[in-house]
Amino acid sequence: MITRPIQAYLRNLHRSYSTLLEGNQADYIPELTEVDADLFGIALVTVDGHVYQEGDSREPFSIQSISKPFVYGMALEAHGIDKVLTKVGMEPSGDAFNSISLDEESGRPMNPMINAGAISSTSLIPGDDHAQRLAYILGKFEHYIGAAPTIQEAVYRSESETGHRNRAIGYMLRNFGILEEDPTEDLELYFQQCAISVTCRDLAMMAGTLANHGVNPITGIRALKEPYVEKVLAVMASCGMYDYAGSWIYEVGLPAKSGVSGGVIAILPGQFGMAIFSPRLDPKGNSIRGIEVCRQVSQDFGLHMLTTGRPSASAIRTQYDAAAVKSKRIRTPAQADLLSDQGHRIQTWELHGNLVFGSTEYVIDDIVRKLDRADCIILDFKRVFSTDLATARLLQGLAEQINDAGKFIYFTHFSTNYPLVRYLKHHLHQQIVDEVMRFQARDAALEHCENLILTSLGAEVSDRKFHPLEYQPLCQELTTEELTELTEIVVTEDYDQGDVIIEEGDSSDCLYFLARGQVSINLRVSGSGYRRLAAQSSGSVFGELAMIDGSARSASVVAEDKVTCFKLGFESLAAETHVRKSIRSKFMLALARDLAAKLRAANKEINALT
Amino acid sequence: MITRPIQAYLRNLHRSYSTLLEGNQADYIPELTEVDADLFGIALVTVDGHVYQEGDSREPFSIQSISKPFVYGMALEAHGIDKVLTKVGMEPSGDAFNSISLDEESGRPMNPMINAGAISSTSLIPGDDHAQRLAYILGKFEHYIGAAPTIQEAVYRSESETGHRNRAIGYMLRNFGILEEDPTEDLELYFQQCAISVTCRDLAMMAGTLANHGVNPITGIRALKEPYVEKVLAVMASCGMYDYAGSWIYEVGLPAKSGVSGGVIAILPGQFGMAIFSPRLDPKGNSIRGIEVCRQVSQDFGLHMLTTGRPSASAIRTQYDAAAVKSKRIRTPAQADLLSDQGHRIQTWELHGNLVFGSTEYVIDDIVRKLDRADCIILDFKRVFSTDLATARLLQGLAEQINDAGKFIYFTHFSTNYPLVRYLKHHLHQQIVDEVMRFQARDAALEHCENLILTSLGAEVSDRKFHPLEYQPLCQELTTEELTELTEIVVTEDYDQGDVIIEEGDSSDCLYFLARGQVSINLRVSGSGYRRLAAQSSGSVFGELAMIDGSARSASVVAEDKVTCFKLGFESLAAETHVRKSIRSKFMLALARDLAAKLRAANKEINALT
Repeated sequence: MITRPIQAYLRNLHRSYSTLLEGNQADYIPELTEVDADLFGIALVTVDGHVYQEGDSREPFSIQSISKPFVYGMALEAHGIDKVLTKVGMEPSGDAFNSISLDEESGRPMNPMINAGAISSTSLIPGDDHAQRLAYILGKFEHYIGAAPTIQEAVYRSESETGHRNRAIGYMLRNFGILEEDPTEDLELYFQQCAISVTCRDLAMMAGTLANHGVNPITGIRALKEPYVEKVLAVMASCGMYDYAGSWIYEVGLPAKSGVSGGVIAILPGQFGMAIFSPRLDPKGNSIRGIEVCRQVSQDFGLHMLTTGRPSASAIRTQYDAAAVKSKRIRTPAQADLLSDQGHRIQTWELHGNLVFGSTEYVIDDIVRKLDRADCIILDFKRVFSTDLATARLLQGLAEQINDAGKFIYFTHFSTNYPLVRYLKHHLHQQIVDEVMRFQARDAALEHCENLILTSLGAEVSDRKFHPLEYQPLCQELTTEELTELTEIVVTEDYDQGDVIIEEGDSSDCLYFLARGQVSINLRVSGSGYRRLAAQSSGSVFGELAMIDGSARSASVVAEDKVTCFKLGFESLAAETHVRKSIRSKFMLALARDLAAKLRAANKEINALT
Repeated sequence: MITRPIQAYLRNLHRSYSTLLEGNQADYIPELTEVDADLFGIALVTVDGHVYQEGDSREPFSIQSISKPFVYGMALEAHGIDKVLTKVGMEPSGDAFNSISLDEESGRPMNPMINAGAISSTSLIPGDDHAQRLAYILGKFEHYIGAAPTIQEAVYRSESETGHRNRAIGYMLRNFGILEEDPTEDLELYFQQCAISVTCRDLAMMAGTLANHGVNPITGIRALKEPYVEKVLAVMASCGMYDYAGSWIYEVGLPAKSGVSGGVIAILPGQFGMAIFSPRLDPKGNSIRGIEVCRQVSQDFGLHMLTTGRPSASAIRTQYDAAAVKSKRIRTPAQADLLSDQGHRIQTWELHGNLVFGSTEYVIDDIVRKLDRADCIILDFKRVFSTDLATARLLQGLAEQINDAGKFIYFTHFSTNYPLVRYLKHHLHQQIVDEVMRFQARDAALEHCENLILTSLGAEVSDRKFHPLEYQPLCQELTTEELTELTEIVVTEDYDQGDVIIEEGDSSDCLYFLARGQVSINLRVSGSGYRRLAAQSSGSVFGELAMIDGSARSASVVAEDKVTCFKLGFESLAAETHVRKSIRSKFMLALARDLAAKLRAANKEINALT
């Protein structure tokens, strides 16, 4: 097993900052000085749930002010943004963490990252009594961390005994009516919340949960509802690092929060959360190693929330028309030629990744450019991992415009994009929804679009026609004598819908002329049952590869409706008579031609896909 | 042509906010009141260069304070961050735009968005005299806008005549030594910069340029060096909206700047820039419609710089091993079997989109998991649009680790990723660079890896062997009599490297047994010359499809080194003798088998690619 690059990087980083011994441990309560000042841990958790740790990342310490953004998130989730904004603001104060910083008129604390604002957030934690409210906080922490945290009782008692300044703040908040009850219980809950025991790894997991839109990257459990995540990150970005607000965004560019026990967390939204633990602080109360490690990581990797990639073109995985990639429905040669000629009228976009405003807009621009010559648009979402509100709105507008223009658009493989589906079902007219989301499978949508084009060209796409042997493409070169002989050899067989005509893996001793109805060619797929490889209509042949290479059946063939076949046993054709040798030779040439055409089509498809 | 969804959206937005008539036009200079207060324009420019406009988006007005971030960017570019930080800070002041807000000790203005800071930025504009310095500013504006701007002379003169407060600020800055010369000229330059004439569309283009990492999305001309873009956006995010700093990040979450003439710009980095023009202001000097439109757009589309997608898994376009997708080199059946059996030892990742920290980390995690069973790793960058510093560092670490482990990694199609290539060439050992970047084409790297595996298994991969007719796979079923006859019919031909053996489009009357050397099968591609579809080695046949369907040559065949072929004219095989009929029949069966095998392989590849 090789060392992953991030692990190697963090190891070097830890080694080089171990020699940085500046700063002093917080001593406002004696318990904080009992922690070894040399401890130094770094942890990083990606949104994919990969955990990197270096140094003392498993040492417990009290969370202190790093609890503030998380408890603020709990208040938002419990009461909504409007209510919370009446109790605490979101402007940087430019003051120290323990400043009172209340609005002169309303008494509202400037922001949730100063003590006054945090006490105000804590007062909003729901519950019938103190025990319930504490359990509420600890329960949410468990969702963030993935394990139940405890409270460092000695730290809590000591904070409570010495918390005179915070009591003053509490009574000031009560005076302004920001706290609606006597502050005593809220203050105790606040002291307890500051004394929650965490490790550097725990904090990185909490930060990683915020990076992952509120969902713990390992357990998959949601710790904070999505709309509030950006609000928590916003106050961390503007007010998280005490009076460093502007310079932190300028230099480091990651929402962050520090605590006097020596922890720092920083988040790159959508990518990772990290935490550093080192108890020596600068005069403003931030961990010196913590600050420097954040700065270094941001600089070394060019990580800044305002330096983002350009998502646009990356959303298109492949784009092709129906001349290059056809549906799995096997058409008559005449119809296949029509589709090759008119294939530009059906345009497919396979989308990819995370759709956001810019990337969706790019796709729509591409669609609009091609819409002059196209009647049918297929957007496939199979490889789309997420869509946002902007994507949903833009696709809604596109579907409406295309519908108004009398053209067709189909969204396929959309089933896992719940927010998109929900939005479209809610905002589009029912009849547009019914049409646009009619096909889950891209191939089914493509086949439908092909049928629309063929029908518009006057071609017959019904599959109810009966194809006797003389109309079978394989038999076109046979003489009357040969046809008569063949008719005597074949056996007519009827099947009902769902009947298995050929079973994958069986030995092969015959081929089938499909005289009536449709069949699908299916491959067994481990786990998910069957995968439809192709579909054939009357007037085609299947099971013919066995005639060439005698191999076992490589796929199953199932009747899609009432089916009639002419079954030709190879044994019955084997006799060395002049007529049968001639039939064999003509079949072989026709099959080889058919294979050559299929191979050319497959190579064309590979080219379109790569 | 349908209406694009964004256009339709902006039209509705413009209509609904047209009725908002609150606020008052700025009147501190008379020229501002001469502008029609009812004007209302919206413009949006995507990083892909699409421009949307609604309402009075082409009306000229003086830029006023919106010039500040752009001139700050010019100062950064001319002097570097460290020097500029001695002249102007980056902390929000919480004060009004015309407050003096200097640091009490150093006299440094708090940030570049207040007048004091902007005058300080302007003083850093390089040039020998006033005319040169003005030309410098206007030249940079031209890069941002894509057209040369003018100055509204009446506005400039009026600002200069009434600019007493700004003169006071200038002398205060001179007092502290922030301005190093008499402020008179810097102040005139500042008044001129505020009087630059722009339209809403111009401002959206300037905002779009910042969104597009400093490059004008239409002209492709760089207006600001990339490292400074995030700094300009950072001060806009923390200080752009006067005393709204925190609430703007909280509610809107887009770096923005307003001006007293009624303009507002807002940027979603990597996606778009927008501008609104409407002269009625709130008491803080921000355009009321401008603010409301920004708020509405952010809310309707869920746009917030801290709400980003999850880039990780979207970076992998396809992942497969050499059992599923082989190189275009056609192997002997025995070697093909070996590769199918040992294909897991070669793993390919085709990457996609914009690689950033999180997505690269996800790819590396996937590689490390598969590395136990793999010896060769191929990372293909053909569909990668951008890579950042984090990607470069992580890939450097990966290449070193894999090299140390005695395994192989190849980066292919990397040529357009200049920053990545430059970084790797600079930071990797020369011999690792030479190995890792040895192949530009993925297929060449794949073929090389196959050769490594085959050689390790004791197989002979040299192509110098001579294959007489009796060793040709197509002739395996021939009798001695038939072989003797065939030897008499074929013509031996020799070719030098680069000789065209078959020309695409020519008519077909023969097939070729490749007896010695290698050939490539090439398709003519419009614009870019040829595309190598396949490569064949001695002991194989080409041009054989013509025997089946008589079609014209669908590709060219070129000798890759010294080549010997046995050319078989179809005419010479056509005679209806017993021997020649038997040869034809055996060839047809062998070709059909070969086609069936190729079709199965192509279908397997299509499955791996979709």
